[in-house]
Amino acid sequence: MLFHHFLNSIRSNIMSKIVYHFGGGTADGNGSMKALLGGKGANLAEMARIGLPVPPGFTITTEVCTYYYDNALTYPAELEGEVKNGIARMEELVGRKFGDTAAMPLLVSVRSGARESMPGMMDTILNLGLNDETVEAMAAATSNPRFAWDCYRRFVQMYGDVVMGVQKSEGEDMEPFEAEIHALKKERYGRDISDAELTSDDSRELVKRFKTLVLRRAGQNFPTNPWEQLKGAIGAVFGSWNNERAITYRAKYGIPADWGTAVNVQCMVFGNTSNESGSGVAFTRNPAIGKNEFYGEFLMNAQGEDVVAGVRTPEPVGKLAEVMPSAYEELCSIRKTLENHFRDMQDFEFTIQDKKVYMLQTRNGKRTGIAAFRIACDMEREGLIDWQTAVKRIPADQVDQVLSPIFDDSALRNAKRIAKGLNAGPGAASGRFYLNAVRCVEATKRGEKVLLVRLETSPEDLRGMIAAEGILTARGGLSSHAALVARQMGKVCVCGVSEMAIDYQERTITIGGVVYHEGDYLSLDGTAGLVYAGKLPTAPSEIVQVLIKKTMKPEDSSTYRNFARVMEWCDRLARLKVRTNADSPEQAAAAIAFGATGIGLCRTEHMFFNGNRIDFMRRMILSQRMDERREAVLNLLPFQKSDFKGIFKALAGRPATIRLLDPPLHEFLPQTKEQQLDLSKKFNMPVEFIMHRVSELHEFNPMLGHRGCRLGIDHPEITEMQARAIIEAAIEVMEEEGFEVRPEIMVPLVAFNKELELQKAIIDRVAEEVFEEKGRRVTYRVGTMIEIPRACVTADEIAQNAEFFSFGTNDLTQTGLGMSRDDSGAFLGTYQDLEIIGRNVFASIDQKGVGKLMEIGVELGRKTRPGMKIGICGEHGGDPASVKFCHRIGLSYVSCSPYRVPTARISAAQAALEDN
Amino acid sequence: MLFHHFLNSIRSNIMSKIVYHFGGGTADGNGSMKALLGGKGANLAEMARIGLPVPPGFTITTEVCTYYYDNALTYPAELEGEVKNGIARMEELVGRKFGDTAAMPLLVSVRSGARESMPGMMDTILNLGLNDETVEAMAAATSNPRFAWDCYRRFVQMYGDVVMGVQKSEGEDMEPFEAEIHALKKERYGRDISDAELTSDDSRELVKRFKTLVLRRAGQNFPTNPWEQLKGAIGAVFGSWNNERAITYRAKYGIPADWGTAVNVQCMVFGNTSNESGSGVAFTRNPAIGKNEFYGEFLMNAQGEDVVAGVRTPEPVGKLAEVMPSAYEELCSIRKTLENHFRDMQDFEFTIQDKKVYMLQTRNGKRTGIAAFRIACDMEREGLIDWQTAVKRIPADQVDQVLSPIFDDSALRNAKRIAKGLNAGPGAASGRFYLNAVRCVEATKRGEKVLLVRLETSPEDLRGMIAAEGILTARGGLSSHAALVARQMGKVCVCGVSEMAIDYQERTITIGGVVYHEGDYLSLDGTAGLVYAGKLPTAPSEIVQVLIKKTMKPEDSSTYRNFARVMEWCDRLARLKVRTNADSPEQAAAAIAFGATGIGLCRTEHMFFNGNRIDFMRRMILSQRMDERREAVLNLLPFQKSDFKGIFKALAGRPATIRLLDPPLHEFLPQTKEQQLDLSKKFNMPVEFIMHRVSELHEFNPMLGHRGCRLGIDHPEITEMQARAIIEAAIEVMEEEGFEVRPEIMVPLVAFNKELELQKAIIDRVAEEVFEEKGRRVTYRVGTMIEIPRACVTADEIAQNAEFFSFGTNDLTQTGLGMSRDDSGAFLGTYQDLEIIGRNVFASIDQKGVGKLMEIGVELGRKTRPGMKIGICGEHGGDPASVKFCHRIGLSYVSCSPYRVPTARISAAQAALEDN
Repeated sequence: MLFHHFLNSIRSNIMSKIVYHFGGGTADGNGSMKALLGGKGANLAEMARIGLPVPPGFTITTEVCTYYYDNALTYPAELEGEVKNGIARMEELVGRKFGDTAAMPLLVSVRSGARESMPGMMDTILNLGLNDETVEAMAAATSNPRFAWDCYRRFVQMYGDVVMGVQKSEGEDMEPFEAEIHALKKERYGRDISDAELTSDDSRELVKRFKTLVLRRAGQNFPTNPWEQLKGAIGAVFGSWNNERAITYRAKYGIPADWGTAVNVQCMVFGNTSNESGSGVAFTRNPAIGKNEFYGEFLMNAQGEDVVAGVRTPEPVGKLAEVMPSAYEELCSIRKTLENHFRDMQDFEFTIQDKKVYMLQTRNGKRTGIAAFRIACDMEREGLIDWQTAVKRIPADQVDQVLSPIFDDSALRNAKRIAKGLNAGPGAASGRFYLNAVRCVEATKRGEKVLLVRLETSPEDLRGMIAAEGILTARGGLSSHAALVARQMGKVCVCGVSEMAIDYQERTITIGGVVYHEGDYLSLDGTAGLVYAGKLPTAPSEIVQVLIKKTMKPEDSSTYRNFARVMEWCDRLARLKVRTNADSPEQAAAAIAFGATGIGLCRTEHMFFNGNRIDFMRRMILSQRMDERREAVLNLLPFQKSDFKGIFKALAGRPATIRLLDPPLHEFLPQTKEQQLDLSKKFNMPVEFIMHRVSELHEFNPMLGHRGCRLGIDHPEITEMQARAIIEAAIEVMEEEGFEVRPEIMVPLVAFNKELELQKAIIDRVAEEVFEEKGRRVTYRVGTMIEIPRACVTADEIAQNAEFFSFGTNDLTQTGLGMSRDDSGAFLGTYQDLEIIGRNVFASIDQKGVGKLMEIGVELGRKTRPGMKIGICGEHGGDPASVKFCHRIGLSYVSCSPYRVPTARISAAQAALEDN
Repeated sequence: MLFHHFLNSIRSNIMSKIVYHFGGGTADGNGSMKALLGGKGANLAEMARIGLPVPPGFTITTEVCTYYYDNALTYPAELEGEVKNGIARMEELVGRKFGDTAAMPLLVSVRSGARESMPGMMDTILNLGLNDETVEAMAAATSNPRFAWDCYRRFVQMYGDVVMGVQKSEGEDMEPFEAEIHALKKERYGRDISDAELTSDDSRELVKRFKTLVLRRAGQNFPTNPWEQLKGAIGAVFGSWNNERAITYRAKYGIPADWGTAVNVQCMVFGNTSNESGSGVAFTRNPAIGKNEFYGEFLMNAQGEDVVAGVRTPEPVGKLAEVMPSAYEELCSIRKTLENHFRDMQDFEFTIQDKKVYMLQTRNGKRTGIAAFRIACDMEREGLIDWQTAVKRIPADQVDQVLSPIFDDSALRNAKRIAKGLNAGPGAASGRFYLNAVRCVEATKRGEKVLLVRLETSPEDLRGMIAAEGILTARGGLSSHAALVARQMGKVCVCGVSEMAIDYQERTITIGGVVYHEGDYLSLDGTAGLVYAGKLPTAPSEIVQVLIKKTMKPEDSSTYRNFARVMEWCDRLARLKVRTNADSPEQAAAAIAFGATGIGLCRTEHMFFNGNRIDFMRRMILSQRMDERREAVLNLLPFQKSDFKGIFKALAGRPATIRLLDPPLHEFLPQTKEQQLDLSKKFNMPVEFIMHRVSELHEFNPMLGHRGCRLGIDHPEITEMQARAIIEAAIEVMEEEGFEVRPEIMVPLVAFNKELELQKAIIDRVAEEVFEEKGRRVTYRVGTMIEIPRACVTADEIAQNAEFFSFGTNDLTQTGLGMSRDDSGAFLGTYQDLEIIGRNVFASIDQKGVGKLMEIGVELGRKTRPGMKIGICGEHGGDPASVKFCHRIGLSYVSCSPYRVPTARISAAQAALEDN
């Protein structure tokens, strides 16, 4: 703790400026200061600098957030004064006073803004500065009491919820403020009128009731002093950095907790003063398919929140040309300015107050994988960016979207289309639908593919969205919460299906008079925005059709052409090679089509399970004598050889790393009494003997048991057979096809140099025997998996025998962290919630721990064998962050599953770009 | 391999001298050159130098052995010439010619000699130089054809076996040479006469038949050329370095394979020429009890081999005073010379040829633990050695012998040995055996002495283990649960008796076809790993009687006084502190009596199994709601607190490291249907629910599962309860006893700094609560086990929160090597045979691998927290080699089971002596 305090004291000493002003055509900060000002704050500053119409305000830096958490939720002493200065500057620029009871008062919004956008995760307060007096001043100044009291009512509701914590408690059906509104409507109108129909008197009454509610629930009075309101709001925004939703979000996206959020305090502008006002959200290009068109939506006489909330369905932005041509033209010009300035597709929020356009936010727009490729290629062609920047623009973790299946054409023709909505997240998804997040998650645990169906989504649905294949909502537009989050996650999403009625109680949905029950199958076409009943078969993506299936020509698919262009750029940049994990000729061929340069991991054990091959293995395991064991294993030779020949042919001369048998022997024996009886008959062997052998082979911790090279050492006949199959196959393929074959034989689970030495001796001996028999040699290498911590710290010794290393990060994670992949489910959720681990360590390399072991292994290995070829072949090889890490520690290649090869190639190229 | 060749080429360049002569009152080498000349060769040289009567000869160095294995079993070019020189020098000194057919020829012995004695492991050839012609010259020269032909017959037999590989094959009942002898005796005498009765003609006929046998079996003629014989014998000795016996021996005693053996070629002397000749083996002091007396035995008219072989029973060496007083006097004088020169007890071989005494070998004598203490103390008193040397002379790994109970000698002679297993817990125990813990406890309540017999033990057997005198298991190795717990408790344990079948239903065990019923007496010799039928009388060791039982006074036990003297010396030397692993006041008290400075590991989980406490744990695990869980756990508070108070009182102010709950929850739930039904009734809870929870908690790899601090994080109520119990106990004991209590709270299985941070926050919070309640504070520390590789490589971060580290080398070995202790039995034997591992990695730290991780942990930890207290608390803490390693890497203390404390103290002192 001492150390911590020490750091903090340094931190407070260097924290010179904590508040940054913007507006009035100038700003203290700029767009490059995202770490300090958050994305929103930095871009507000940048927009102000380039003359865009930004309401003035100031940003409290993320360092204040960090200070807040490091110092028992207190602020730096100077903050209060700085905030006062900020408000004073705003007052000057707009000519209004904060808390003015005589004239139109200055009202402000208080918004969070982290370094990376976390949509909907943290809190926002609008219309701050209103109280029983200022509201009257506002009513007078605007001559619109209904509007003024509506603003005040909204403010009390929002502040009461977010800052004072008056929220729905367990057992309540409705948010408490909503319940008050509902009651009042019932009382006064006898029915549920719309909020817009509320009179100023209704709002006044509601404010009164809200305050009573707040006092009762929160135990304190609603603050009337605008300064006190402001202080509370700032605290709430900082506090929301550590709410449950934000933590879940950070865990999923690997955002560190210590980044913190900034707070933006900005003059309010109103899209809801009249029908000459409005709010909208727009993109400078189409974020779903990437087309270069003005894309977005707006609502007249509405605040920005209303556009996103999805209560009223907004209009496409093109419609504004008719409704208010001057504003439309200004926005078109802003769109151009933004793209020319930021040189990336922008996602921005605007408000029109009494015909005047204001910019509230801009940021680089999230886009689907397909759109990312198109926008990058288009912008490069348009000269907005160079090709290196184009490569940087592809979100590597979304590349698999462009490879994901779409619905089968013929199936679509016979399918029962039941509804049309907005195409918010492209792709095709089928699954059983569930109406809440919890049941979605539970169903996926049972192995089901699921769809989340909601009236609209909110941050609370996040876990369900993560679990689901696709999301379907009844309300909300292309920039609703559902749409935004779905696109970012690469989930299929159809939203705004207004014809769908949902009964949460009965767990049913009704579309066109037909009732569907939770658990029924639906299918979503997120590219077209269509909903189908039942489970539709899917078809490969265009890229797969061009590259793998050859059912489409390159010239017929612009998606493919953009993809291919980016991939070509990547190859110019990447230093890391990308290989694939493939156990069959088909997988190898697919991976090569996706650009793999060879096989980094061919698991041979899958070959032992095919057909009746397993019986030979079983005979071997059940044999008592060495000669019987050897004979049984030799029966597998022709099968293994033909498997390897198929793979070598598919590779056409590319290298193949083949791992010797790895799993424990008990995996090959039947485990149930019934199967054991069957085998006993088949082998004419007492069942007691089989049972005895099964119990003998039982292990308490099979992960740490008799497997990997421990098998080959105890059963040299297996290594002999496998080495012979590989070498014979290599020579035969060379003779039949005329190209070189480059087998790399990999010994698994080595912890001791001597293990490798002994296995290598067998392989070398067998190879020489085969060379003698065949009268021909082949160049092969012998290397090892590095997947045991001991191997990392003794890599200098192991490199005496190993001609290459391949990190098996799956097992290295399990052993290095002492954490079983199969069992960690029980606590991994808690661990993510508590931010003990960031992202799932089995998906993305734990760089500090497992990564450190890898670094030690690389350093020691190359000390003995300079320039040694070192790769990685765990699941992590297809994870962008892990690929970049592998680049940084100087690996030679990564190996991943075939469909992740493009992701890895892009990540490798991006890693190379980050070197500079 | 390149690297290897490079090393070899260096080696051959620096290998200047490969043959060292000795004899004739001088020698090339000396006693300090054991690494190069082997123990035997170095001491032969030393004896020659100090004028003892050594037959002349020469030693081929161990470097030639290493060369031989590194260069495809070939020799350095210069060897042949050097050997010729050596023989020539011998010829000159004794005035005989090698291969002389005219006069008495020079005959030689060819013996192995490694750096450390490996008795009986490698090969020896005697009488080399005889053939059909030289034998006649010998017969003529000695006028004793029977003797000459007997020598020749023995030579052919020995050479045929050892060098030419004519050995018993499968299916044969008798060694082939012995079969020939047997047949000849039958033919010529009709009965099995003794070898001594064979005539010269019998031997001549046998030589003929032996040669035919050799040709038939080995496919080549027996070599007649003495030079060819010599070359073959040298090769055989080098070859025997890698025979199976030698490899097994090296694995057991941790001797590296690359040490190699030397070869000693020496003039033959004969103890079997007449009744004026003889051979003997003697010790300069009694090696069993350490008494300063001439001790040994001899046989007249016999070769040295005959003394050891045990066919004729030899006479005690004192008898020689009567048989041949001159030789006896000479030997007494030699005994004095040896002790004065070597300043250690010597074990030597002599031959008397025609009244003249020859010395064939001397070495430091092996001795029992008791003898070691006595000899060291006596020699120090006699002024032969200083006290530091006396400390070096105690074989640390035999210290536990002097603490263990012993069987009465006379009883053992009549006892019926029924099985052999692993000597897991030294000492002797007799009692009625029971097959479960409950019946063990019941029987002790009836006043019985009992043994617990199980297939294997688990924490549920703990009460039975506590009650029992000794533990016998059918499965499990030296570090199985049974072995670990037994050693910690100082219980006798024999484990892994695979020939024992257990029928829990019938309550019987079957060994060798004999059925024993529960309640029958068995006796266990845990020092030798033997099981006896019936009840053998035992007694505690004298040291235990003095220190623990207080049934003997120090002045009545010289064994105790020697022990105490050595321990006092150790404390002057040791830098490492020695703590103990103890879970009860009794264990703590015993350890303190043995010199422990505190508790290094108090496992709290054992406290959860006692009596009905486990039911509270079960309630906690079966509770659905947090408040129920907390309530259930709080029931354990009084028990835990009283446990801790007992321990704090026993420690009387010494520090105690207490580990928070570690094992996975499923260990607390009943696993069989029957037990689950019982619990269901007891808790009035559906059995289905219990079964569901058991299956929910089932883990594939419990070692890597939901345990250690992962429990405390998921179940903060456990950590809260334990922290409260510790702090309350500490304050209460301080108040009741008036001494300081120094609790050190240890969080297990930490892999991430954040885990420790979260657990420490709970502990600190609870501690403050208790301080408040009690109005009094106590100084406590919070630290962590380092037992996960990730913890080692991120120790700098973890040290931000950890006030101390304790390496949990049991788990660190399992995770660092990816090797489960419970499952590695399947291949560990093979691994030792193949010399992949030297000693059992679960008994002695794998210094290159696990040790490297520890070094990284120490370095990083102290980088953040200079001078940090770092210890070790795995089983390895009581292993001498591991203790020395801990000293070298700068640990602060080791912690081991109470009865291993003296071993650790001696090892720590020896480690300090090795620093210089």
